[in-house]
Amino acid sequence: MPEIIFGRGLLTQIGSCARRLGGNKVFLVSDQGLFNAGWVDQAMHSLLEAGLNFVYFDQITPNPKDHEVETGAREYIRQGADVIVGLGGGSAMDAAKGIAILVSNGGNIRDFEGSDKISRPLPPLVLCPTTCGTGSDVSQFAIINDTQRHCKLTIMSRCVAPDISLTDPDTLATLPEEFICTTATDALSHALEAYFSVASSTLTDVNAIRALSLLSDGLVRAVREQQPDDLERMARASLHAGMAFSNSLLGIVHALAHPIGGLYDINHGSVNAVLLSEVIRYDLPVVTEKLPELAWTLARHKDLSDRDAAEVVEEKIEHMLDAAGAPRTLSSLGVKREDLPQLAHNALSDVCILTSPREADETDLLRILERAF
Amino acid sequence: MPEIIFGRGLLTQIGSCARRLGGNKVFLVSDQGLFNAGWVDQAMHSLLEAGLNFVYFDQITPNPKDHEVETGAREYIRQGADVIVGLGGGSAMDAAKGIAILVSNGGNIRDFEGSDKISRPLPPLVLCPTTCGTGSDVSQFAIINDTQRHCKLTIMSRCVAPDISLTDPDTLATLPEEFICTTATDALSHALEAYFSVASSTLTDVNAIRALSLLSDGLVRAVREQQPDDLERMARASLHAGMAFSNSLLGIVHALAHPIGGLYDINHGSVNAVLLSEVIRYDLPVVTEKLPELAWTLARHKDLSDRDAAEVVEEKIEHMLDAAGAPRTLSSLGVKREDLPQLAHNALSDVCILTSPREADETDLLRILERAF
Repeated sequence: MPEIIFGRGLLTQIGSCARRLGGNKVFLVSDQGLFNAGWVDQAMHSLLEAGLNFVYFDQITPNPKDHEVETGAREYIRQGADVIVGLGGGSAMDAAKGIAILVSNGGNIRDFEGSDKISRPLPPLVLCPTTCGTGSDVSQFAIINDTQRHCKLTIMSRCVAPDISLTDPDTLATLPEEFICTTATDALSHALEAYFSVASSTLTDVNAIRALSLLSDGLVRAVREQQPDDLERMARASLHAGMAFSNSLLGIVHALAHPIGGLYDINHGSVNAVLLSEVIRYDLPVVTEKLPELAWTLARHKDLSDRDAAEVVEEKIEHMLDAAGAPRTLSSLGVKREDLPQLAHNALSDVCILTSPREADETDLLRILERAF
Repeated sequence: MPEIIFGRGLLTQIGSCARRLGGNKVFLVSDQGLFNAGWVDQAMHSLLEAGLNFVYFDQITPNPKDHEVETGAREYIRQGADVIVGLGGGSAMDAAKGIAILVSNGGNIRDFEGSDKISRPLPPLVLCPTTCGTGSDVSQFAIINDTQRHCKLTIMSRCVAPDISLTDPDTLATLPEEFICTTATDALSHALEAYFSVASSTLTDVNAIRALSLLSDGLVRAVREQQPDDLERMARASLHAGMAFSNSLLGIVHALAHPIGGLYDINHGSVNAVLLSEVIRYDLPVVTEKLPELAWTLARHKDLSDRDAAEVVEEKIEHMLDAAGAPRTLSSLGVKREDLPQLAHNALSDVCILTSPREADETDLLRILERAF
């Protein structure tokens, strides 16, 4: 787990964080949207105030691509940078991670797909999330699009958890409404999959449950009204969910979302929102011992039968997704029916399938995709 | 937060942990009791299996002393060790931390008293707790007795959180019954003080609450029956409480316990158990917003008035301490009445007083000590 700094207005600390890690020349990775909203400017100001030089790199796109990461790494080396700061959603942060991997390990980003393939330590890394959902700022995952094979590379390693995770919930004030919904539902999927994971433990459960409690309380309001207190709740939920899933890993939602994102380059949170209900319905019969705490957390119901608890959980999640206006079908996202078999097949080799509470073969996965279509 | 490894039988992983941190020659700090119980032997075996050399150092006593830490540091340097493993209770682990500070920073252990006084990185550090309560294996605290001034030095720094915390709950099977009680009540005091601390946050609260839930459920049974499941619950509670207080810090119980431990060299957990009720009673009026969650966690009561919730919390803690057979008076521990004013005075300069939810001057502290006498 990285050192965690959380609080409104704390983006101004980005410079002192980078300096504390021993940096002199910062490679700042962010994107146009955050630049336009003024947050990149604030970060640059903080870096200068801390006496640091910096190089700004924004040649990244949603679902960051292998060639973008390679360009970033070349630029980092050419400029002689020595610390990386990623400011943004999962795309900017995962791009920052990918660049960090390449500058210290060389090779091709594809070489690092899978678990524990990174052999040399990364440069110091500070990650600042500006959405409600990625968890990349605390996680040991980096997801990069392989544009040759049209799939997502899931890179899992302790090394890609940053040195410092710095969240300033004020940055959510400029996040477009649709992204509040899709990133907060992404956090919801992280928390639920982490809680159900076969690798979960009390250490991860406490964070998953706190995330679910915050989401249950504030997600719909945060999307609809965008009040600072609710947005801060979402930022906290994202952090707790990230702390949970980084250690317990995930499940079928993410095992399916990765190939879909790789093939269509569509928003990760939207895909998760669509898959979530179907996967939860698939998982519920095998997670009965976790249902009492979950029914209590989501809906303040207790002493229910397994069947009633499952119903309460399912209804509450449906309600949250509907009321938040989350996308509900794969077809509405542009997924084509004829691709479903290939997507089900590809999900079988994603690392997230390994911690699903309920085993699933290609037929099971295809059935889930068809129901979510 | 260090990397955390937790599970029965995992002491056998101590060698691979030390090796993973790049060590060749391990400085193994433990004590006679653990040696006699066979755990040191198991640790040595694991180190050898991982292809590591080691030096064994056990010249430490409860409430580890400045001169013991200095002797250890000299021995570490003389032997050319390059990684430190601490196996034991708070004493062995804090001694390991003190040795780590001196071998990389030089000077006198007194130079590092207070907050953030360590300037050079420590050697790799693996800590393996074998009691139910210290939390030192995850905390950024090290407590060393200053034998000249007869007080405890509280050293607080990110640097003293180890690289790896490895808990094998099986080691609790050989912990004498009295230490199950005093160390589990130490964990109880950590969790409560962390939860009430002015520096607490949702990140620390989730861990404090989980620790309290585990303690509420299993402390008395663990002391009385010593079943493996309950002992594992205590080990988990200790870990969660440590994760909470390392980040939220503590309060008056510890601000008073440190000078008492420094003057009398008596068991830290016993002192905390005695002080806990009085300090909780002192704190309760100012922590009303935390009482509903606490009353629910400890006693499954909800929708109570502030007054009723406070009463439920107070009664439950009293009951746990009594039923576990914890010591209940300072006089029974050998504290002398004439020393109370000096102890109250010394507590004012302990770093733990800063995060007490309720301010306390010397008169308030003396009153607490007198009531606990």
